[in-house]
Amino acid sequence: MTTRSITDRLGGLAFGGDYNPEQWDEPVWKEDDTLMRRARVNLATMGVFSWALLEPEEGRYDFAWLDAHIDRLHANGVAVDLATPTASPPPWFTLAHPDALPVTPQGTRLTHGSRDTYCLTAPAYRSAARRIASALAERYGDHPALALWHVHNEYGTICHCDHSAAAFRVWLRARHGSLDALNEAWGTVFWSQRYTSWEQVLPPRATQWHKNPGQALDFHRFWSDEIIAAYCEQRDAIRAHSDRPVTTNLMLPAYQNVDLWALARELDVVTSDQYPSSPGLDAAADAAFHADRTRSLAGGGPWLLMEQGTSTIYDGDRVLAKEPGEILRHTLGHIARGSEGALFFQWRQSRAGAEMWHSAMVPHAGPDTRIFREVTQVGEAVARLGQLAGSTVAAPVAVLHDADAWWALSMDGLPSPDLSYHEALARAHRALWDAGVTVDFAQPEHELGRYRLVIAPALFLMSDAGAENLRRYVERGGTLLVQHASGFVDERLHARLGGSPAGPLREALGIRVEEYRPLRRKERIALSDGSYGTVWSESVRAEGAETLAAYTHSMLAGSPALTRHRYGTGQGWYLSTRLEGTDYGALVRRLLKEADVEPELPDLPPGVEAVTRHAPDGRRWHVLINHRTDTLPMPEPAHDLLTGAVAHELPPGGCAVLA
Amino acid sequence: MTTRSITDRLGGLAFGGDYNPEQWDEPVWKEDDTLMRRARVNLATMGVFSWALLEPEEGRYDFAWLDAHIDRLHANGVAVDLATPTASPPPWFTLAHPDALPVTPQGTRLTHGSRDTYCLTAPAYRSAARRIASALAERYGDHPALALWHVHNEYGTICHCDHSAAAFRVWLRARHGSLDALNEAWGTVFWSQRYTSWEQVLPPRATQWHKNPGQALDFHRFWSDEIIAAYCEQRDAIRAHSDRPVTTNLMLPAYQNVDLWALARELDVVTSDQYPSSPGLDAAADAAFHADRTRSLAGGGPWLLMEQGTSTIYDGDRVLAKEPGEILRHTLGHIARGSEGALFFQWRQSRAGAEMWHSAMVPHAGPDTRIFREVTQVGEAVARLGQLAGSTVAAPVAVLHDADAWWALSMDGLPSPDLSYHEALARAHRALWDAGVTVDFAQPEHELGRYRLVIAPALFLMSDAGAENLRRYVERGGTLLVQHASGFVDERLHARLGGSPAGPLREALGIRVEEYRPLRRKERIALSDGSYGTVWSESVRAEGAETLAAYTHSMLAGSPALTRHRYGTGQGWYLSTRLEGTDYGALVRRLLKEADVEPELPDLPPGVEAVTRHAPDGRRWHVLINHRTDTLPMPEPAHDLLTGAVAHELPPGGCAVLA
Amino acid sequence: MTTRSITDRLGGLAFGGDYNPEQWDEPVWKEDDTLMRRARVNLATMGVFSWALLEPEEGRYDFAWLDAHIDRLHANGVAVDLATPTASPPPWFTLAHPDALPVTPQGTRLTHGSRDTYCLTAPAYRSAARRIASALAERYGDHPALALWHVHNEYGTICHCDHSAAAFRVWLRARHGSLDALNEAWGTVFWSQRYTSWEQVLPPRATQWHKNPGQALDFHRFWSDEIIAAYCEQRDAIRAHSDRPVTTNLMLPAYQNVDLWALARELDVVTSDQYPSSPGLDAAADAAFHADRTRSLAGGGPWLLMEQGTSTIYDGDRVLAKEPGEILRHTLGHIARGSEGALFFQWRQSRAGAEMWHSAMVPHAGPDTRIFREVTQVGEAVARLGQLAGSTVAAPVAVLHDADAWWALSMDGLPSPDLSYHEALARAHRALWDAGVTVDFAQPEHELGRYRLVIAPALFLMSDAGAENLRRYVERGGTLLVQHASGFVDERLHARLGGSPAGPLREALGIRVEEYRPLRRKERIALSDGSYGTVWSESVRAEGAETLAAYTHSMLAGSPALTRHRYGTGQGWYLSTRLEGTDYGALVRRLLKEADVEPELPDLPPGVEAVTRHAPDGRRWHVLINHRTDTLPMPEPAHDLLTGAVAHELPPGGCAVLA
Repeated sequence: MTTRSITDRLGGLAFGGDYNPEQWDEPVWKEDDTLMRRARVNLATMGVFSWALLEPEEGRYDFAWLDAHIDRLHANGVAVDLATPTASPPPWFTLAHPDALPVTPQGTRLTHGSRDTYCLTAPAYRSAARRIASALAERYGDHPALALWHVHNEYGTICHCDHSAAAFRVWLRARHGSLDALNEAWGTVFWSQRYTSWEQVLPPRATQWHKNPGQALDFHRFWSDEIIAAYCEQRDAIRAHSDRPVTTNLMLPAYQNVDLWALARELDVVTSDQYPSSPGLDAAADAAFHADRTRSLAGGGPWLLMEQGTSTIYDGDRVLAKEPGEILRHTLGHIARGSEGALFFQWRQSRAGAEMWHSAMVPHAGPDTRIFREVTQVGEAVARLGQLAGSTVAAPVAVLHDADAWWALSMDGLPSPDLSYHEALARAHRALWDAGVTVDFAQPEHELGRYRLVIAPALFLMSDAGAENLRRYVERGGTLLVQHASGFVDERLHARLGGSPAGPLREALGIRVEEYRPLRRKERIALSDGSYGTVWSESVRAEGAETLAAYTHSMLAGSPALTRHRYGTGQGWYLSTRLEGTDYGALVRRLLKEADVEPELPDLPPGVEAVTRHAPDGRRWHVLINHRTDTLPMPEPAHDLLTGAVAHELPPGGCAVLA
Repeated sequence: MTTRSITDRLGGLAFGGDYNPEQWDEPVWKEDDTLMRRARVNLATMGVFSWALLEPEEGRYDFAWLDAHIDRLHANGVAVDLATPTASPPPWFTLAHPDALPVTPQGTRLTHGSRDTYCLTAPAYRSAARRIASALAERYGDHPALALWHVHNEYGTICHCDHSAAAFRVWLRARHGSLDALNEAWGTVFWSQRYTSWEQVLPPRATQWHKNPGQALDFHRFWSDEIIAAYCEQRDAIRAHSDRPVTTNLMLPAYQNVDLWALARELDVVTSDQYPSSPGLDAAADAAFHADRTRSLAGGGPWLLMEQGTSTIYDGDRVLAKEPGEILRHTLGHIARGSEGALFFQWRQSRAGAEMWHSAMVPHAGPDTRIFREVTQVGEAVARLGQLAGSTVAAPVAVLHDADAWWALSMDGLPSPDLSYHEALARAHRALWDAGVTVDFAQPEHELGRYRLVIAPALFLMSDAGAENLRRYVERGGTLLVQHASGFVDERLHARLGGSPAGPLREALGIRVEEYRPLRRKERIALSDGSYGTVWSESVRAEGAETLAAYTHSMLAGSPALTRHRYGTGQGWYLSTRLEGTDYGALVRRLLKEADVEPELPDLPPGVEAVTRHAPDGRRWHVLINHRTDTLPMPEPAHDLLTGAVAHELPPGGCAVLA
Repeated sequence: MTTRSITDRLGGLAFGGDYNPEQWDEPVWKEDDTLMRRARVNLATMGVFSWALLEPEEGRYDFAWLDAHIDRLHANGVAVDLATPTASPPPWFTLAHPDALPVTPQGTRLTHGSRDTYCLTAPAYRSAARRIASALAERYGDHPALALWHVHNEYGTICHCDHSAAAFRVWLRARHGSLDALNEAWGTVFWSQRYTSWEQVLPPRATQWHKNPGQALDFHRFWSDEIIAAYCEQRDAIRAHSDRPVTTNLMLPAYQNVDLWALARELDVVTSDQYPSSPGLDAAADAAFHADRTRSLAGGGPWLLMEQGTSTIYDGDRVLAKEPGEILRHTLGHIARGSEGALFFQWRQSRAGAEMWHSAMVPHAGPDTRIFREVTQVGEAVARLGQLAGSTVAAPVAVLHDADAWWALSMDGLPSPDLSYHEALARAHRALWDAGVTVDFAQPEHELGRYRLVIAPALFLMSDAGAENLRRYVERGGTLLVQHASGFVDERLHARLGGSPAGPLREALGIRVEEYRPLRRKERIALSDGSYGTVWSESVRAEGAETLAAYTHSMLAGSPALTRHRYGTGQGWYLSTRLEGTDYGALVRRLLKEADVEPELPDLPPGVEAVTRHAPDGRRWHVLINHRTDTLPMPEPAHDLLTGAVAHELPPGGCAVLA
């Protein structure tokens, strides 16, 4: 295979978006060509939802329309990220293969009329997906416009049908080896759930009370593996005909149906989609969170922001708009952290269909609009940053992230519904982002030696290997913060006995958690150092650790809440509650100081984001983003790639990329 | 056909209610006769839920019991509004025709044990409905007691079964002509939804993500047409045997499954049911809103309040009581606006069954109660108003109302869930009611020349013809207020390109909406004139209009919020946000002044409702309702029909009908 | 049959819990033996969820493992409460008898993977349950360790399948005799629901609007009878082989699918499970409420707290912990009220499975924990109270409790959703508990002459016999408080006509309720005596009663809110609204004074619980529980069974049992 880098092929950073010309006609295509040039678009994602056009009836392909568009783009200097359209089978597929439609846990078989109406385990679906991927690769594998293969879209749909049940059983046999092992792992001796033949084993369908947590966890794992296998099948079918890199766009954070670490390992380029869920500074922090996660998933390899919205913030049941300048700030928030460019969903806002209100680069109101003017400015800015291609980002701190832990916290019957894995992850990142520090994410079993500080939030499930790895990390000089409700269960979702977290980690932390005590909704509990805990508390026994803050009332009075243990050449900290926002921020700053971690640029006031990209040849660029409402003088005047001039100050909302 | 007027036949205004003697026995019937005379009842609705009694087994009819009751009523001076019982098929029907039971989008087939358990598209249901309507008409078509035919009850039930799917396809063929046209209209090119044969097209059943909005809108339209067709079939079956007027009782506002304008056109007399959803002044405003809507639907023809409760206010999950005097005030609120009388659901409160807690004219506690005493007083009052029969009401202002616009705002995936069509409609009406002005409702395509002021709230979907009609209205001297989120889509639910609203209207308003910006829940946004917007905001470019108020912060700073455009000989106003209550009231009063609209009676304080009925011979009656807690002197002493004496003052809660 | 008392067999009060050794292995069993001795455990419940182990395939039983555990326990001095495992059929049963799985009203057939996945009306399930109960009884019926039979677990699961429909019809034929009677009872003449053949009658499955309330009520009654029949079948199968007492553990209060009065009559020992839903003093009050209810259900016979949690408080969506000392206080709260001991779910916290987070006597963290230390202390305390065995409790006050009334208040379509039966019951009990008075529960038809005061909260449905019984109770000198919304319907759920409550009671109360007026959410309504009502109000006419407080505004102004009627030699009080907390407490204290009811011990400050147990030989023990945060001097120093010494004071949270 050739290079996995997009920038090498494009000769600069990628800029563009999903392009669905089949929704429009000739005059619009002509305008598209003009506007794309004006906006400096150099990469367009095509075909994501085109199955019905590409294969209008089973086995008959129609590529002529796509040929024309790709050639037109190519002539216009725009490369193509070509998708396999398998995220949305056409209606004819539904009628021909009703058994390939997904079934809910309640037994409702969904039908077409939306998207993602398929079951990945249905043989008819899988072979149809392979066939069309192969046909596309055969036709376009060597097209000079082709820069990237984009398999499917936002994998994550699961199903509870009988195909799924059969595939689940196959997976379980492979994982557990025997029914006895499965019964042991799932604890089926409780509630009389013991299985005596494989065909008794089902997906976790609608049942009377809580589901079996082991079954539910394994169903998550099974689906993750199934999704990865489905991706790999398409990837391999493509590779048989094409040497261009292959990816699928990950959906962070809403989709938790796939182990992103495992899927990312199969991607030539890691790509992902970012849609913040609250406006303002939160949205900028979310962009950084998303970029840091994606870069970490890429593990040093290339990665790319595949989708963002020009004006799309999903605030629960409504879609908020982005303010002026936010498109650039979010884009630079990604590029600063290593993205090879920035793409949008989508080029032109659909005039009909389910996503007609999703923002786009060219809105319904046309190019004579604030949005398109900003898009053009951002395109210009990205074009000026070509020299950043190939440079990397270094993070002194890691936050641990694990799919098993996430799934484990989504089980029925937990003591508290407020143990949100995603919230804990985002909160740890946010505190570090506020402190001006760049962050990696890592799995508990990863080599962590290069990090000065490691934070483990909500690592409810922790493998034996992970616990031992963390112990060793501390022993060898690392500073580790483990947060509440971590290490409660092992890989099989069995409770750790004798106190949590898992043994090796108890040793490193010098504590033993004896009892947990969920808090009531909105309850806050005072600690001896004046801070407050929420959501959760624990009765902790110090076994070597020093107590930095203790609980002051209720059954916990006197129990440590925050501890530090000097172990080997490092420090193991344990925080047994969810500190309130400012208290948590203060703790993280204290830990950064203990671990000798400096912000990327010193002396920046709060609200100014700074990240440094390092080229292999020693060059460095500082990306600065001013989220404040006042103008800042530059630490020292420097050449700004965005303007091509020396920057002396950073206006409110302004950005600079200093060489 | 003979006269459509009820009052002609009754010799006065109608007073009475649903009468279900089959729930009681002989002694109660005797008491009913006495009490009806005492309450001046002259019209009783019978048979609404009597299918099981009328046709105890398929094809065998039993009319004897009904004969006896109708004869008894007739002898007692009470006319009959005879219902076809098709809103509730008997259990034997369910067992004989399980395919005629309704199916939810999730595929659950409902069963009997409630009411409305049928699918209108099921052939077995339709023919059974026609047969019993015909049999009733044959038997009672000439009965001297018969004043009105009451087809079905509160049409509105829809279904997602296979019969429904088949009928939907027939309807779609007729509407779109070809699959290509359907694909174009629904934008199926997005999400790979392109249909290649008709049998692939389904109702919007349970699916994975958002439904296709074009499909959902057409499904609403299809069901509306189907409901109207079902009504017409029964009406025509009746007309073959009877010359009495035919109606069905509309349910406003909760039911939005039928285009009320279209259904009302098929009714000889428009009748409707009113149940307010909050107490006090809100309930009185709701009565006025309901009456104005029903009169407008009748388009100058006769109309009648078919159902109200003596003590029923549906406040979400509970049923509040009406306070003393409210029955009369709500009744006069309707009669003032043109109703040919006032009926109740129901005469005698059921002692068992699902609606046993629904209030009635004779409550569980019997006639020696406040409620029955008030009913008697109201019956007396209505009897004194006979001379109002045939007089009409004139409204100087219209609020636009359109079924397509309502349905369009109920789609999946809108930018905000707070764009409530019904709320916007009620709010515009309420501001005008508070200002003492009588209001018509009209469709955007109606001739509007007779109105001095037209308000278009939430006209999200606007047809080309509607936009042009509104432009012309302004050009010819009208004053038009268009509110936010109007004219965003055309008849096919396709976004208006180049900015909204639709082109002709942009010309009349002198603005172009470039971008929308939904607000967060409870967010309020300041305008330059000191008022505040909520729910929604827009980036507006003035293209000829003058800016009366502008946004003051965020991306909208400087954008017009409220504009006025002098166009032709009229004025086009545009309001791009939802003003807070008092600010909106002030705007509406300003517009009334601009448009030279005076309240019905001058110098009345807030909380006094006044409407004038005009007889063809020039006589006029002012209906006054005092919702205040203080006594008002009459503007000038006048003869009050309610007391038969000269009224000098209006006590708190009091009413007067001045000749 | 031999004695029904557990204490006779154990030679003292019972202490222990559910014991599931099959989840563990040999070393743990050995530790269990040691720890049980340390904790003074003398009774272990076994086999509740062991069907899959006991009958690994249909008809083949494996008792060897259970033999070994029972023998081990026996050798260790622990008696056995042996369960039939029928609450959780094994997966093989599901595959063999899919028709025995439960079906929801929406038609979803649930599957295994949880517990309680069976339909009690399925013949296959019923015979399988009988068989295994019989097999267990045959094998263990005479085992010297066997102290009690524990049929099933927390009966309450219902189903809407076709077996259920068939059984429902059989039950309905027996109850109503004829279809005509059923039609009359259910009021099917409304909404055209008249049944003309039995096969038309269905369970209340998913339908379009409100369900028929008569059908829904009878479905509750049917299921209650079916549950009791299922219990009796197992009990009788056991009795054929064993002379030990038989029980099933009732679940109060969450489960309302069975008439507890009727089921309790079939139990040799009444046992029940208690899990509070809020912490602190509320949890203690809940323990008292639960104990008083269970004792009342036992009707003078033996009863036992079968399950409590060492640290389990179900606070909505989370599980709170118990504070130090609460295990003892809740345990004594039960024993004080007559329980023959205190058991827990469960001995050792499961390390896997759906209830792995449910607290236990030996928590995950092991015996070196606060929880196990407290368990040991509680075991010691219970062991010291052996002499209380056989003593009884006397209550001067009764609160009425009726399954029909509860079910009637769970119907669709009631005027207010805030008429919570359970809340009304608990509230009346709490006011009496706060006043230091011990409470019985009774059915309205019970002989009430021994009570000085009877309170009837929310007795929405009241039988003719109940109303007459209450009238007679007052006439003969009793003091009765009837609360709002009582006596609105009769046994058939038909409204009482002419005003509520039912006639005889109106006579005793000297009032007539003419109209009800639900209040809005959070609305409070002022009464003339300065108190406030919430939730509900009524228009009441005094017909002999004196008005103690009246409403002061709205349509109710002047209507009595609280009345007293001297009737015969007693007093009938009526309260037509839900008084706010402190106002209600004051009313209850006033009534206690009127009725000459003294607290169990005089002069105790609020927050000190005291109950007296009376031995047949005249001995008395006062159980004192100090819920306050300060230390109290004893009224007079006395011997404390818990310490074996003379108690002079009661520390915060402390308990004493004074001889």
